Amino acid sequence: MSKPLILVTNDDGITSKGIASLISVVKEIGEVFVVAPDSPNSGMGHAITVDSTIHIKKSNIFGDIDAYECSGTPADCVKLAKHHLLKGRKIDLVVSGVNHGHNASISVIYSGTMAAAREASIEGISAVGFSIDDFHYDADFSHTMPFIRKVCEATIKNGLPKHRALNVNFPKKSEEPIKGMKVVRQTNGFWKEEFDAREDPHGRPYFWMGGEFINHEPESQDTDVWCMENNYVGIVPCKTDMTDYEAIETLKGWKF
Amino acid sequence: MSKPLILVTNDDGITSKGIASLISVVKEIGEVFVVAPDSPNSGMGHAITVDSTIHIKKSNIFGDIDAYECSGTPADCVKLAKHHLLKGRKIDLVVSGVNHGHNASISVIYSGTMAAAREASIEGISAVGFSIDDFHYDADFSHTMPFIRKVCEATIKNGLPKHRALNVNFPKKSEEPIKGMKVVRQTNGFWKEEFDAREDPHGRPYFWMGGEFINHEPESQDTDVWCMENNYVGIVPCKTDMTDYEAIETLKGWKF
Repeated sequence: MSKPLILVTNDDGITSKGIASLISVVKEIGEVFVVAPDSPNSGMGHAITVDSTIHIKKSNIFGDIDAYECSGTPADCVKLAKHHLLKGRKIDLVVSGVNHGHNASISVIYSGTMAAAREASIEGISAVGFSIDDFHYDADFSHTMPFIRKVCEATIKNGLPKHRALNVNFPKKSEEPIKGMKVVRQTNGFWKEEFDAREDPHGRPYFWMGGEFINHEPESQDTDVWCMENNYVGIVPCKTDMTDYEAIETLKGWKF
Repeated sequence: MSKPLILVTNDDGITSKGIASLISVVKEIGEVFVVAPDSPNSGMGHAITVDSTIHIKKSNIFGDIDAYECSGTPADCVKLAKHHLLKGRKIDLVVSGVNHGHNASISVIYSGTMAAAREASIEGISAVGFSIDDFHYDADFSHTMPFIRKVCEATIKNGLPKHRALNVNFPKKSEEPIKGMKVVRQTNGFWKEEFDAREDPHGRPYFWMGGEFINHEPESQDTDVWCMENNYVGIVPCKTDMTDYEAIETLKGWKF
């Protein structure tokens, strides 16, 4: 049997430690093809490049592994791989990450890492986004390796329900080993922003966005944030249909 | 009773015809405050500016109406308005658009227009994104006006369920008057991309993304695409929790 074809991308860019760590795992279980942004794309959400051109360049930073760096967004990378670079070939799995910084709770919406996985799921390809609760460029990914392998193997074997992607978040490396993996749901929470207002040398205002995460349900144990904070790997299956079916009934009662 | 405070934004930029049309309606029903991108942000998805600075400038293009142009994304505009420019004030409604081009079906995920509305819903503010099935810069918005007013008034009066935003799509202007409004769901479909591969003057490859929309359920009459194609206004309530609760049970049966 031929090896499964695994497309790898991320949002921190092709030179990040996270994507190298991910490739080191998936090259053991499949044929790897890499298309990743040529520069950091953090917070890129599900952006796509529709009003300008997209550029790619072959890269040899992963040795024998086929790799391209791309001027586009994480979602662009998946589209370009599927519809151009790998046109006609069946992609068995798309993996994205490992992201430097978690994508639990509402961060799934801002995340370029998860946009790439979601884009693959829109195309009907099984996909997983991996992230770690550590923003450091030199974050320690060693504890994530065996779990990444297990999740990828199980996803290839079982296949995900159509138009679904997994959002997998790891705790930061600590003394204590990871306690296990849990299938959970997206935590209800948000980022409360603080804007750091400054003045440029010409006296014009500008801002840095910052803020803190507010967890609306810190006691709930079936959530991705709880997993991360309690040294579990949290796995959330995500879908692409954003319709709130309950609210349809509510709105039908409105008098417009 | 004081007038409701309405924040207006979009993704086509502050100089687009769509936002001017939207403002001309909502200024009749509330106090209007505008924060919109200083350049087009189509396809921006739910991107936010975390790794660079955000710049704003007061604008007088809407006469007496308070308006700012912002270097950030549509989601940034909402965050900056809520947490800085309007800090301490209660925003009663956020409206985004009118987008030149529809955001029905899967386009809701790529849309900066809907990201702005979704961002407001994350903050607990009632929000509506408006889009029209006409990409032309000089699109005719006249038929959308009475419906925009009805949707805004009903949303202010009833309030949306928490963390919900409305995705409202209008058909292109035609001879036939609009038949009415329907509360529907997101169509199951996707954009099948075609990449137009070219060479730059230095012989390096580059691409333009293009493609066609594939509707997986053209017969379904309870969808946003059906509405648009049959001269109805389609209203889809959207949520921010992307968890697929059914898939949680499926995945719990996997052997990792």
